[in-house]
Amino acid sequence: MKALTFSGDLRFERNASVPRREDEALVQVICAGICNTDLEIVKGYAGFHGIPGHEFVGRVVESPDPLLMEKRVVGEINAGCGRCELCLLGDPRHCADRTVLGIKGRDGAFAEFLSLPTRNLIEVPSSVSDDAALFVEPLAAACNILEQVEITSADAVAVIGDGKLAQLVVIALARTSLLTVIGRHREKLELAQSFGAHRVLLDEPSLLSECSASFDVVIEASGSPSGLATALSVVKPRGRVVLKSTHHQTTPVELSQIVVNEVTIVGSRCGRFRSALDLLVSNPIDLSALISQRLALEEGLRAFEEAAAPQCLKVVLQME
Amino acid sequence: MKALTFSGDLRFERNASVPRREDEALVQVICAGICNTDLEIVKGYAGFHGIPGHEFVGRVVESPDPLLMEKRVVGEINAGCGRCELCLLGDPRHCADRTVLGIKGRDGAFAEFLSLPTRNLIEVPSSVSDDAALFVEPLAAACNILEQVEITSADAVAVIGDGKLAQLVVIALARTSLLTVIGRHREKLELAQSFGAHRVLLDEPSLLSECSASFDVVIEASGSPSGLATALSVVKPRGRVVLKSTHHQTTPVELSQIVVNEVTIVGSRCGRFRSALDLLVSNPIDLSALISQRLALEEGLRAFEEAAAPQCLKVVLQME
Repeated sequence: MKALTFSGDLRFERNASVPRREDEALVQVICAGICNTDLEIVKGYAGFHGIPGHEFVGRVVESPDPLLMEKRVVGEINAGCGRCELCLLGDPRHCADRTVLGIKGRDGAFAEFLSLPTRNLIEVPSSVSDDAALFVEPLAAACNILEQVEITSADAVAVIGDGKLAQLVVIALARTSLLTVIGRHREKLELAQSFGAHRVLLDEPSLLSECSASFDVVIEASGSPSGLATALSVVKPRGRVVLKSTHHQTTPVELSQIVVNEVTIVGSRCGRFRSALDLLVSNPIDLSALISQRLALEEGLRAFEEAAAPQCLKVVLQME
Repeated sequence: MKALTFSGDLRFERNASVPRREDEALVQVICAGICNTDLEIVKGYAGFHGIPGHEFVGRVVESPDPLLMEKRVVGEINAGCGRCELCLLGDPRHCADRTVLGIKGRDGAFAEFLSLPTRNLIEVPSSVSDDAALFVEPLAAACNILEQVEITSADAVAVIGDGKLAQLVVIALARTSLLTVIGRHREKLELAQSFGAHRVLLDEPSLLSECSASFDVVIEASGSPSGLATALSVVKPRGRVVLKSTHHQTTPVELSQIVVNEVTIVGSRCGRFRSALDLLVSNPIDLSALISQRLALEEGLRAFEEAAAPQCLKVVLQME
């Protein structure tokens, strides 16, 4: 099959092996999105070698569970061992022996086919388009914030960042509270407003000083190592900072700011797909504005270059 | 009066002015303890100039409230503006305009006399010795952990550090759960056991690898910039790390560890004195083992040198 593979450098291959794992479903990928984690992976993060990609919509073509055959699906990316305490409780997201689609020990979605356990697959309701379903994984990660941190309409909430993850955070939280989005790109800030942000602010020192220590909750979704420092400057004493960005370099942090102001930092990663699908069904949002480009798998290397550009939002690899 | 003053360098002065503030009490200091924050202050942290020192026991010699006259007292170190929302709620610890005894905008305890608002002073019960009362401020900071983080007997709890703050954390938490203390000094680890630690562990890579991802709650009280990295290596996924150490240099942090493992970091500073005094009354503990040296104010410069030595615990300046 055709696939993008990474083993020190990213390549397009025409004859990669179709991944088949015992007792799992084979999914024909319809389209897949490139996210920041993928950009980090092709820089060598975490030593992943194989086919990257974990945001996808596909159609089941082989399955031990006949009810899934031919269904259009999205897939939870963590495949647990199935035996540990966490897995038995139905949540393999922190299983110590998990594989993660396109991230850890398991080939991913930048290919014609991928393999996942049937329990990871969720049928996409017909009212949700391929383009919208493509965002279920990062939207679930955004919805996860509300499972981890109690946010009420009385809280002043800021989102740091205006990239694709930040935009999905706005979509996930805009119904809960009045959001201020702090970003570096005027156009993307306008987009955040269209998704429900109450106020937007350019990330410039003179503007930020006005909202020093102003927010009860700050979501750091900028993807930038400087995002945490910005978050710590605008969060109130005893406030909460949710860290969503994963960048794989060490970041210099003034820990005394966290201690003296008694700030709580909450690391937040994957969410449950069901909440995100429910949100897309109950509140149909046109997510196409988040798609900057659509390229064929053969153009994968260029797609990665485009995805790394600062003004870019989602780059989609279209398989069909 | 005699005092230690800091304005770029630390000096002993024989003729410092007695601090008198309108509507405040004047307290004659009996003894005062040197803590890590003081060591940071005399390195120039936060630009504090004046008399450092914030851990003390004293006797009220002038007071607008006659009931306080002649009483033996300890004192909450944050003096709020008295008008903001936080102050009106009775908690000036995060008042934006607060002064802090010996730390921010207010002369401190390394002197014969200090001034504090009467509402900051708490009488020390006669059953609590001067030596024990001296530890009320840092013990309150240790007790504060239980106000911020829910810890049950089912939680596996680790304390990083074996210095004076870590020892007080052991005292504050030993009744709540089984504690493992991870430190670098065998003698201090033995002391932690005498204060109720269930298990102690030398902070060595081979030993730490055995307890990787093992603890539900980790208290970082080492005072060392490397303490957070140790904490992140031993905390479970979705676990909690309480940051107690204030060191005023930026620390390189692998933020992706916090995000991927969805760890919560809780900054924790000052606590309420009442809880600490109650603990000392209900559970009389011999804290004299925490006192390494006792020196006169005249020997203050040497006292600071001694306090900075790695094997040292509390150095006390005795005024009388």
